Amino acid sequence: MSSHERVGEPIRVALLGCGTVGTEVVRLLTDQAADLTARVGAPVELTGIAVRRPNKHREVPAELLTTDAEALVASADVDVVVEVIGGIEPARTLLLAALRAGKSVVTANKALLAEHSGELFEAADASGADLYFEAAVAGAIPLLRPLRESLAGDRITRVMGIVNGTTNFILSGMDSTGAGYGETLEEATRLGYAEADPTADVDGFDAASKAAILASLAFHSRVTAADVHREGIASVSAADIAAAKALGRTVKLLAICERVSTDGAEGISVRVHPAMIPSSHPLAGVHGAFNAVFVEADAAGEMMFYGQGAGGAPTASAVLGDLVAVARNRVHQGRGPRESAYAALPVRPMGQTPTRYHISLDVADRAGVLSQVAAVFAEHDVSIAAVRQEGRVDDASLVIVTHAATDAALRSTVDKIGGLPVVREVVSVMRVEGEET
Amino acid sequence: MSSHERVGEPIRVALLGCGTVGTEVVRLLTDQAADLTARVGAPVELTGIAVRRPNKHREVPAELLTTDAEALVASADVDVVVEVIGGIEPARTLLLAALRAGKSVVTANKALLAEHSGELFEAADASGADLYFEAAVAGAIPLLRPLRESLAGDRITRVMGIVNGTTNFILSGMDSTGAGYGETLEEATRLGYAEADPTADVDGFDAASKAAILASLAFHSRVTAADVHREGIASVSAADIAAAKALGRTVKLLAICERVSTDGAEGISVRVHPAMIPSSHPLAGVHGAFNAVFVEADAAGEMMFYGQGAGGAPTASAVLGDLVAVARNRVHQGRGPRESAYAALPVRPMGQTPTRYHISLDVADRAGVLSQVAAVFAEHDVSIAAVRQEGRVDDASLVIVTHAATDAALRSTVDKIGGLPVVREVVSVMRVEGEET
Repeated sequence: MSSHERVGEPIRVALLGCGTVGTEVVRLLTDQAADLTARVGAPVELTGIAVRRPNKHREVPAELLTTDAEALVASADVDVVVEVIGGIEPARTLLLAALRAGKSVVTANKALLAEHSGELFEAADASGADLYFEAAVAGAIPLLRPLRESLAGDRITRVMGIVNGTTNFILSGMDSTGAGYGETLEEATRLGYAEADPTADVDGFDAASKAAILASLAFHSRVTAADVHREGIASVSAADIAAAKALGRTVKLLAICERVSTDGAEGISVRVHPAMIPSSHPLAGVHGAFNAVFVEADAAGEMMFYGQGAGGAPTASAVLGDLVAVARNRVHQGRGPRESAYAALPVRPMGQTPTRYHISLDVADRAGVLSQVAAVFAEHDVSIAAVRQEGRVDDASLVIVTHAATDAALRSTVDKIGGLPVVREVVSVMRVEGEET
Repeated sequence: MSSHERVGEPIRVALLGCGTVGTEVVRLLTDQAADLTARVGAPVELTGIAVRRPNKHREVPAELLTTDAEALVASADVDVVVEVIGGIEPARTLLLAALRAGKSVVTANKALLAEHSGELFEAADASGADLYFEAAVAGAIPLLRPLRESLAGDRITRVMGIVNGTTNFILSGMDSTGAGYGETLEEATRLGYAEADPTADVDGFDAASKAAILASLAFHSRVTAADVHREGIASVSAADIAAAKALGRTVKLLAICERVSTDGAEGISVRVHPAMIPSSHPLAGVHGAFNAVFVEADAAGEMMFYGQGAGGAPTASAVLGDLVAVARNRVHQGRGPRESAYAALPVRPMGQTPTRYHISLDVADRAGVLSQVAAVFAEHDVSIAAVRQEGRVDDASLVIVTHAATDAALRSTVDKIGGLPVVREVVSVMRVEGEET
């Protein structure tokens, strides 16, 4: 600390929840106390930790533990509330109470932010409190602050990322072993990469919450989890992975937020689904628990942010960064960025979103098959970018990659093609991302 | 803008300099006026543009142009000063005047920040003004804000990056064509990737300024360009590149800032030099004008930031992001982060810095050569990690990669080995980075 700055009154912090992340938050607050004091301009003190079962938390000071989260939040001895409980309730009620009382909030709760950010921001605005949530998306990767602040003078056109480690681990596994989805999920569960009930991850709920948060910040519009088109990875087959590989592509579960214009009106598309990307794309090289997010903006061009997307210590790092920010704001009478939802862009339904499809078919090996298939594309006004046909004994494999068309037109095309007598089987249908359209 | 917020008094901006970046700043301020107003909570108005030769700037409104930068900065109609002149003077005097008058400053001036940040921060602190400089390092990549804010609760151990596009273009060219340095520099100059006088880039001055800024922020210590050990790329030979390739490595000019402990005392090493990194390292895949910076922190682990490091529009995007931040702070009576130099860690001389060397030798092909060479390493207490010897007609090539040792010990080892009668030529000596030691 430079000599001309005095150390201010302590900033008193209540911690709600003390699982993997909470325990790391306590550890960092203790280990780095002197540094935090210097960086904030005042000591950062932990006043209490609300948990369900105090006797389960032997690694944190017993005298700080309480089961009464409500009383802790209401305490006159608390300036800042850090929430790492997760889930909607009781987190929502507790944080609204904190914000209404003018206490700043730092949270890692993606589900809550993706559903109730409007309500939380309004409470923060009314009392002048701060609301920070860097840890809610992509763990330790500084991503929300760049979107909210560094790119505040630019026009973001697209955010596309790998934001769920479990599904990335499973898809990477399927890619390297050639095994199917079920088998690889079992392996992931055994190794602790998937939870006993993997629904939130494999069905894309976790990624959808993060996509909603990213879209809200990138496009200055309120987007909730319900606005996000969501497809999980349970339907990704070994055949899909093999088809992707054959074309130099890799299958990833992507969260995609982009500006789309329909009939001249500006809107946004927010979606989570598996997609093939070129194996040369930087996102294709992101494995295991790592997350990475690609951002495109008019002036800044392409950027990528890469790092650990989950885990106690990485998530706690993001929480501590926010805690230093809100504590500094308290010491220096500052305010963090508020909700910016002025653009209020409408979220387009998936059917109206322009996408590209990769379609792999088993067809009869006789003259006229390609012309019949191509006619269906033409009928739906879908333009074909590339075709590959390979004859086998008495059938053939036909692979088609389309140009961009609305998702609805592509769906109808695939449905109709599946019904053609010359098509024996639709082997794989998957969207293609990360290439020029 | 949400209905409960009113639009405040305009934030009036003076622009100093109107080259490639300045012109883009003017364009973005005009094109995005409505968005900026909504994001800031007040209109952002350009009050004047100081240039040397007004008749040379036909692309910006003539009525805003002035040759009197001093009067523009002093004007009562200016709240924020944006500086994109570059160089130390007159930028330093103008920005000190602005800050002393309580006007916030946004600058892209790496040379100025790397030499005079202390003085500038003190002036900002005294008057309560903001000083932002995201555009000074790695162009559009949001990097300084993450270091200063997102990671403020963590302990950064290392920052390593490619922060100069010209040298990266030249080294990439040498790698892909096998051509020498001089030839590739000529080509880069012809294509506009290198300036007529390339000294600032190829001798590492530009990267050293950026390293000083990164080290200051990462380690909460004042580091100036003079503290940075600097080696350029002029001595990188085609033989070095070939030697790297033979071992699955790539040569990059790296800016490296890291914590080092000598005899238990904590210090930092800040340096710019060419180094071999594994071709599988994410930085190895960064080509041309792109920049990328790897950051390692205790809790967050490894992160990478990637994007366009230079160019008018990308740099202007970073300037605009800062401008929105300081304008918001004006509207909401906030303050940005101040200088954080409390740790005051000493910069260790290069000789005391632990590094690893790759050494490629032409030696006589006879018994006992390896033992003579190895004896010199042992004498200097330098441990060998890997050796590769290949016989040819009547000489042999000997490649040695060391474990980490002090740079001074490694230098002495190489000097002594070069004098051994059995060593015909020291073909290549280069530091190795990005691997486990």
